[in-house]
Amino acid sequence: MENFSFVNPVKIIFGKGQIVSISDEIPEDARVLIVYGGGSIKKNGVYEQVSSALQGFTVYEFGGIPSNPEYSILMKAVALVKQHKINYLLAVGGGSVVDGAKFIAAAAKFVGEPWDILEKKAPVDSAIPIGVVLTLPATGSEMNGGSVVSHAAKHQKRFFVSPYVMPQFSVLDPTTTYSLPPRQIGNGIVDAFTHVMEQYATYPVNAPLQDRMAESILITLIEEGPKSLKNPTDYEVRANLMWCATMALNGMIEVGVPQDWTTHMIGHELTALHGLDHAQTLAIVLPAVLQIKAKQKHEKLLQYAERVWGIKNGSDENRIATAIAKTREFFESVGVPTHLSAYKLSFKDVESIPDRLIEQGMAQLGERQDTNKPVVIDILKACI
Amino acid sequence: MENFSFVNPVKIIFGKGQIVSISDEIPEDARVLIVYGGGSIKKNGVYEQVSSALQGFTVYEFGGIPSNPEYSILMKAVALVKQHKINYLLAVGGGSVVDGAKFIAAAAKFVGEPWDILEKKAPVDSAIPIGVVLTLPATGSEMNGGSVVSHAAKHQKRFFVSPYVMPQFSVLDPTTTYSLPPRQIGNGIVDAFTHVMEQYATYPVNAPLQDRMAESILITLIEEGPKSLKNPTDYEVRANLMWCATMALNGMIEVGVPQDWTTHMIGHELTALHGLDHAQTLAIVLPAVLQIKAKQKHEKLLQYAERVWGIKNGSDENRIATAIAKTREFFESVGVPTHLSAYKLSFKDVESIPDRLIEQGMAQLGERQDTNKPVVIDILKACI
Repeated sequence: MENFSFVNPVKIIFGKGQIVSISDEIPEDARVLIVYGGGSIKKNGVYEQVSSALQGFTVYEFGGIPSNPEYSILMKAVALVKQHKINYLLAVGGGSVVDGAKFIAAAAKFVGEPWDILEKKAPVDSAIPIGVVLTLPATGSEMNGGSVVSHAAKHQKRFFVSPYVMPQFSVLDPTTTYSLPPRQIGNGIVDAFTHVMEQYATYPVNAPLQDRMAESILITLIEEGPKSLKNPTDYEVRANLMWCATMALNGMIEVGVPQDWTTHMIGHELTALHGLDHAQTLAIVLPAVLQIKAKQKHEKLLQYAERVWGIKNGSDENRIATAIAKTREFFESVGVPTHLSAYKLSFKDVESIPDRLIEQGMAQLGERQDTNKPVVIDILKACI
Repeated sequence: MENFSFVNPVKIIFGKGQIVSISDEIPEDARVLIVYGGGSIKKNGVYEQVSSALQGFTVYEFGGIPSNPEYSILMKAVALVKQHKINYLLAVGGGSVVDGAKFIAAAAKFVGEPWDILEKKAPVDSAIPIGVVLTLPATGSEMNGGSVVSHAAKHQKRFFVSPYVMPQFSVLDPTTTYSLPPRQIGNGIVDAFTHVMEQYATYPVNAPLQDRMAESILITLIEEGPKSLKNPTDYEVRANLMWCATMALNGMIEVGVPQDWTTHMIGHELTALHGLDHAQTLAIVLPAVLQIKAKQKHEKLLQYAERVWGIKNGSDENRIATAIAKTREFFESVGVPTHLSAYKLSFKDVESIPDRLIEQGMAQLGERQDTNKPVVIDILKACI
């Protein structure tokens, strides 16, 4: 096991009927900005629950944060924050809304051009406190300090991480996910699954507990994922899915082990260039990364094959190939195609990605930093 | 899954050579009291590392905290805290030292008779901040807000839980455990294992991720425990053991599931009456609880038998009995006897326990609160 430090002070308030408790978490004299997305919360009752819980508070609203939260839109919220002296952000929505709120929270306190936080990794020294009402199990943003923001004009999608933007609390009520379209549930399953794989499918460092915890999330996603699509209002299934997605990226399974993140870095470029859903890019890239890096990930992929998919027979290469095929099948089974061609894209459409990564200082990727331009090209070819 | 809320802000700093980092965690102007046990830290180099890291700080010392930290001794430390205006406690040792520090931290700020915190569950409103350098993987106290304190004169052993006594940080350096006697390692393994069982061996509530995470810890303890006794200086094994013990009781596996704690409550009385090691009491009581409550715990014990011990054949009753026998064997294999008779105790020596529990308001115990006096008597008889 490698040395590590771990701290995660986010308070999770989980279960049906819990939205009402936000009034206990937000300071009484707070000037709150509710941040949300396309307006689904006004149709599914979540907005009403939030409004009713916040009666007596000073509340403003900012809606319209798109998936892949867009810099120019978030900056309008930053202006609103400054104008109304907002000192608490309540993100109500999925990962895009939470990520957007994190950027708003940091940008409102930032001296200089806030895009530098993302493009130049300018340090974040403070942020407006954030609370979350999560409505989509997927990104894990509700229990970490990461945020990904897009810049349409620049065709860029960049991330930043700061302890200052970790939510103070996150309410996870599985019933808020009942009305989600299947595409978003499928995307969430792929997103959570890939988060685990980025922290698991690397090389062994004798960390059996972390390995088993990662496998626990993968197996549970494989079990509960399809059920959650079949029976959208099965509370238990949605609860399990929601908790898996949070546990997949709250830092618990990454302690003391190497991490990859090649799939995410290539995936971000795919979204920046062609507007694919985040999870669609992961479903395309992850199987390709596992295939091209199978030799370097040999031992962990054998373990993955046996423990997650129950594959015990055949040659090493065979078992690994079967496990990758099963991964692909699983993503397809929850409605997320795993080939570029399914999105009407060819190698020509993605061939700029290796150089785009190099421009961002990512000439080498992966747990061993050995995924360089020729390897990324191989991965992209395997995505077709 | 049941509704829950979860928050754990303890910072974990894990790995070899990490003790030096305590100087970054403790405020520069702090008046620090180092709290420790019988003095082993002065023989194994830990004291030197701590002293060297704290050069320039204002430091006092209080040694001699015994296992099963004793109220009258802790109150001497409280006097020292007041006398020297101590505003930071650094616990250096195992669970008893950490638990002791937690009580000192709360008692020093408490108005009234501090024993009331334990006996009358008097509320704790504040506490002196605590840091930890852990030297014994066992209790999990390094990452939670619980503390157990003994009162020799009253023959009592009581606990309290407060968010105010959660450590601000805990350094876990596995090399500090190399010099531990086998008895303490064996005890630690039994303690961590039993913590998981208290949160796992109840009844199913459709919480597959929590179940698998609990099983992950159990399986890893079964694998790594014996190795840690055989090769005391195998860093990886000790690291895995240490992380298992912390994860066993940091709140992560208890979210949304019922909990038992019958074994601990009976075990505390055994220690209060006869001075047995905490883990010895758990090794005696846990198998008896599982046996007597096998019907109520039926489904989870079958799952435990199959997933943790790989027992797949035989009748339900048979598989459960085998799993309980395996649990007993495992405890014995790490050097902790599992029968009262091995400690030269008979039923007569423990027959006051049911009434002692009732006196403390624990007339009913367990995940269904159906373990009443006659059942406790049955459990004690099964302990012989």
